[in-house]
Amino acid sequence: MQLSQRITGITGGGSDGWDVFYKARRMIAEGENVIELTIGEHDIRTDPVILAAMDRSARGGHTGYAMVPGTQALRESVAARIQDRTGVPTTFENILITPGGQAALFAAHAATCNTGDRALYIDPYYATYPGTIRGIGAEPVVVRTHASDAFQPRAEDIAAEASKGAASLLINSPNNPTGTVYSAETLEGIAEVCREHDLWLISDEVYDTQVWEGEHISPRSLPNMADRTLVVGSMSKSHAMTGSRVGWICGPKEVISHLINLATHTTYGVPGFIQDAAAFAIDQGPDLEDGVAAPFRRRREIAREILADQNTVGLIPAQGAMYLMLDVRATGLSGEAFANSLLDTHKIATMPGESFGTAAHGHVRVAMTVDDERFAKALKTLVDHAQTLAK
Amino acid sequence: MQLSQRITGITGGGSDGWDVFYKARRMIAEGENVIELTIGEHDIRTDPVILAAMDRSARGGHTGYAMVPGTQALRESVAARIQDRTGVPTTFENILITPGGQAALFAAHAATCNTGDRALYIDPYYATYPGTIRGIGAEPVVVRTHASDAFQPRAEDIAAEASKGAASLLINSPNNPTGTVYSAETLEGIAEVCREHDLWLISDEVYDTQVWEGEHISPRSLPNMADRTLVVGSMSKSHAMTGSRVGWICGPKEVISHLINLATHTTYGVPGFIQDAAAFAIDQGPDLEDGVAAPFRRRREIAREILADQNTVGLIPAQGAMYLMLDVRATGLSGEAFANSLLDTHKIATMPGESFGTAAHGHVRVAMTVDDERFAKALKTLVDHAQTLAK
Repeated sequence: MQLSQRITGITGGGSDGWDVFYKARRMIAEGENVIELTIGEHDIRTDPVILAAMDRSARGGHTGYAMVPGTQALRESVAARIQDRTGVPTTFENILITPGGQAALFAAHAATCNTGDRALYIDPYYATYPGTIRGIGAEPVVVRTHASDAFQPRAEDIAAEASKGAASLLINSPNNPTGTVYSAETLEGIAEVCREHDLWLISDEVYDTQVWEGEHISPRSLPNMADRTLVVGSMSKSHAMTGSRVGWICGPKEVISHLINLATHTTYGVPGFIQDAAAFAIDQGPDLEDGVAAPFRRRREIAREILADQNTVGLIPAQGAMYLMLDVRATGLSGEAFANSLLDTHKIATMPGESFGTAAHGHVRVAMTVDDERFAKALKTLVDHAQTLAK
Repeated sequence: MQLSQRITGITGGGSDGWDVFYKARRMIAEGENVIELTIGEHDIRTDPVILAAMDRSARGGHTGYAMVPGTQALRESVAARIQDRTGVPTTFENILITPGGQAALFAAHAATCNTGDRALYIDPYYATYPGTIRGIGAEPVVVRTHASDAFQPRAEDIAAEASKGAASLLINSPNNPTGTVYSAETLEGIAEVCREHDLWLISDEVYDTQVWEGEHISPRSLPNMADRTLVVGSMSKSHAMTGSRVGWICGPKEVISHLINLATHTTYGVPGFIQDAAAFAIDQGPDLEDGVAAPFRRRREIAREILADQNTVGLIPAQGAMYLMLDVRATGLSGEAFANSLLDTHKIATMPGESFGTAAHGHVRVAMTVDDERFAKALKTLVDHAQTLAK
């Protein structure tokens, strides 16, 4: 009687630089006034008009089992939104509603990777990616990017791993943790590798409303890619509905029909009243989404002004998403040592770049998730701290 | 680029007697007045006091990420409820909150079965069981029960399969679809097999508030079983919260800590406002649960009276759960043929016993989920129809 290798091996061992995060949490629990710039959680709550829609649905009687694939209304709203944004014909049959983006990531890998298959992903990466791949019994294989490329992946590096055999490639643009938005050139290169090496492309686009520079391109819209691309989306970041756990997979109809079978056996659908709230929220159109994104757009400008006057802390362009990736290598410290030092000295909590793989070593990730004034103050303090260390 | 064997094989092929269910749905969609006795969905909605608690939580700001293992309050409420009912010391560390009982079933198997392991389950079975086992890459192995035993499993039949090697055994008492409540003798025999053959026991107890005869015994309370038992629970049946998708696994702390890692990578937690509603509902105590169960208790008595006067349709004791398993073999028809005939002739929809495996062939399952008057009328019509066929 032992636990499965799948579950005992899911975290892959190692603290991966999360010690500073847990230390910050402890300090906060002990009542210390820590400025929390670690996690991708908005500093606003879900809009009350969305919560009112949820309450209307629940009190109206939508408290029984919802259809496993999702409600017709939400599947159609998501499909219409994707078609509007990509120009690719999309119907409800291309959509499975999932209990959040993480469940969609898990299901997408479960659908495309057999046990033991190699599944590619890009470093730096969102913390759950390798564990998600291990969780379905596949082998996570990392493709490194480079700070000198602003963390845009190189097609030849992906091709080098794909040529050894792989079932899938997971990408994320706008990117967490780097703030990079993949360029048309990057995405065309990725598409070419997927077609040449017959890879499924799993495209995590949960930050698609947070683009400050350039343009978000969904690989679903690239030539001959709709049939091999599974897009992961979510209401979490676009509508400040992180706690509602509602997301989706958009992909070929045949894949969705199999994913519905998987959903029947893994989650049995998503609460109907949450789906009604989500459909209501999407149907409000881009104004609501723009309003949720606005604070991050504003704070990114604040950050650019603060960082413009110095050369100690480098800013990866921060083209999208609610994070800044800051290069602190001039201090001579690792990202983890710098983050620890900043937390100990100034009670400002950031994430070491090392928490997200090896590519962002010597960096820290700053979530732009406190009010403008505290954010500006924290960032100035961070710069001062780096300059003191660099002397 | 192919889909994984896991996902293409999850349903195992075959219609499994669900044609009559889909036919009934089509008839209803076309406006026909079908009496729907197929699915385990209450004919009441979630209590408005629970929905009000959810709305208070959401508007109070609990709309961000909840802790992945579950809120402290709900984990403690579930632990206290289990300790009250079993006498086994249980704390929040024994509890993982899941998005519904199905997610708990999936996670319990993912934790205990390696790819290719044999995982035992009992026939007749809830429709998702074999697919859940296939979904984590294990091999579903059925242990048949017999109508002549009132579908109580025989320990020697389980031992015969366990002796060929198996990782886990999944049981369900009170049982869907049979209405059987496992006796102390049955459960002690099962526990003995689990200890002797070193099996994990996954105990689906989602109907634990629906016991009409005898006593619900959780195997977690049997000697030396708490360390190898994972109890699956849910708010769906006990609190008429099917659509809220909130359930749990109760097990050893070390297993729960690994299951939390799995949850991080599969679902990333359950909405906080739903957890607050669930904790509120549990904290109302047994009165609310008894109220939700009462209609089924009442209708079971109605059924016993109707069935007492005849010998054509046999009633498996119906000791618990919201179903009756009726033996219609005297008609000379299969369960599927009888259910089709009843639907075509009288527009009454039931589930063929064959939908739940091979053991309940020649039976139909009746969900007691319409109001008392329609229920009594439907059951009388069913008996008349059987008598006509048996002549």
